[in-house]
Amino acid sequence: MDKKPLILVTNDDGITAPGIRRLIEVMNTLGEVVVVAPENGMSGQGHAITIDNTLYCDPVVIDDGPQKEFKSNGTPVDCVKLAIDQILDRKPDLLVSGINHGSNSSINIIYSGTMSAAVEGGIEGIPSIGFSLTTYKWNADFGAAQKYARLIASKVLEAGPALPQPFILNVNIPYLPESEIKGIRIARQAKAKWIESYDKRVNPRGREYCWLTGEFVNLDDGTDTDEYALQNGYVSIVPVQLDLTNYALMGRLKNWLDKP
Amino acid sequence: MDKKPLILVTNDDGITAPGIRRLIEVMNTLGEVVVVAPENGMSGQGHAITIDNTLYCDPVVIDDGPQKEFKSNGTPVDCVKLAIDQILDRKPDLLVSGINHGSNSSINIIYSGTMSAAVEGGIEGIPSIGFSLTTYKWNADFGAAQKYARLIASKVLEAGPALPQPFILNVNIPYLPESEIKGIRIARQAKAKWIESYDKRVNPRGREYCWLTGEFVNLDDGTDTDEYALQNGYVSIVPVQLDLTNYALMGRLKNWLDKP
Repeated sequence: MDKKPLILVTNDDGITAPGIRRLIEVMNTLGEVVVVAPENGMSGQGHAITIDNTLYCDPVVIDDGPQKEFKSNGTPVDCVKLAIDQILDRKPDLLVSGINHGSNSSINIIYSGTMSAAVEGGIEGIPSIGFSLTTYKWNADFGAAQKYARLIASKVLEAGPALPQPFILNVNIPYLPESEIKGIRIARQAKAKWIESYDKRVNPRGREYCWLTGEFVNLDDGTDTDEYALQNGYVSIVPVQLDLTNYALMGRLKNWLDKP
Repeated sequence: MDKKPLILVTNDDGITAPGIRRLIEVMNTLGEVVVVAPENGMSGQGHAITIDNTLYCDPVVIDDGPQKEFKSNGTPVDCVKLAIDQILDRKPDLLVSGINHGSNSSINIIYSGTMSAAVEGGIEGIPSIGFSLTTYKWNADFGAAQKYARLIASKVLEAGPALPQPFILNVNIPYLPESEIKGIRIARQAKAKWIESYDKRVNPRGREYCWLTGEFVNLDDGTDTDEYALQNGYVSIVPVQLDLTNYALMGRLKNWLDKP
């Protein structure tokens, strides 16, 4: 390759989160890095986009690295769209999102701003990877996650245009000492859900409000899932698709719903 | 059935939008209706949930119908979670979301608050249907959409516990006079994307901002897609799944990424 590969970096924990700073360090060793990320935390924003509000996107300097950086009031998906349409002068060779503070395995992919940014990259034809570390600790040790992020991103950059489209990976790294991580497992998304509960309170003006809380439940006893891989000390990689069609149900519905 | 079926209604255009009011009218003829919907417009919110902010959810009376109604400052997905955990005393027999002002065909499903509410219902094991009319007109004629909403919801309620899980339908109704609608097509999600552009402006304080705009592009020339059905005068129904795993890519990756 004549030019260094162009790598777009984003996340959903906000541009100053330790996870994205550690990811930028790694990507600076692999290519030319442009960061476009939310100025504030956007966890749980899913594939939200900003359509009824104004978007800002401004250059910012956060540390001494060689990367160019921009912060936005938009969601992670907005950041990807802004980067592609407004900031970058060519299509990135790779999009990386994260390193998320907390797991995005199984059904979490659907709520995750980190993974939605990667999915948006996939829609745009950019090889895209979301990285998540299975701990919410803000000052977690990202060392092992950095090692695997470098390894996987390097392989994706090497393969380059030979990759199928869309090429989207959901990578979760178990929060273990590096020596205890057993390797990588290619996995399917486990069937799982959250059982919600709400912490109810009364505000100083006497009005009831609540906070969303919940408990994650793995409903899947398969040994080929991301949850199983993580629980057994492996990094999980789930390749992700964009087609939500339930093909198994299509034929059944054809017999069922006739022309009225 | 001894009891009338319990139907949960939500949307992403806000609880006073004409589309949800017309949907409530129809559902009142089919069962006991509880509405839990955003107090304001939440278009484009995708599968966003509110985790770093307080949630309100209060009873409200909007018209004279028999339905019970609650409005929330949360997203459509928050509304579904609040309904299930806080408001309803039994699991609904059906969740309907919409009728959305604007198409949610093809890739739009991923950005759509309307469809994300239906997907959340599916995660919870509730047969769930998102309805969308292919016009953004606020005072559109919802007559034909009401007819198809009633037909499809009735069939789903009849089938009841016999339905496979998850059971999620993405229903789009072309904005045509009822007599010109040719019937229903069971379809797959068309491959499509938005080409973004941004309308750049300067605010009164001299700071640049922009608005997201874009053009929808159908990249799929199949005749079995939702886009094709809609363009040819049919109501499209895409059954939706929750598993985003790209199985075709799994095997390929297994050979490609060895244990480091």
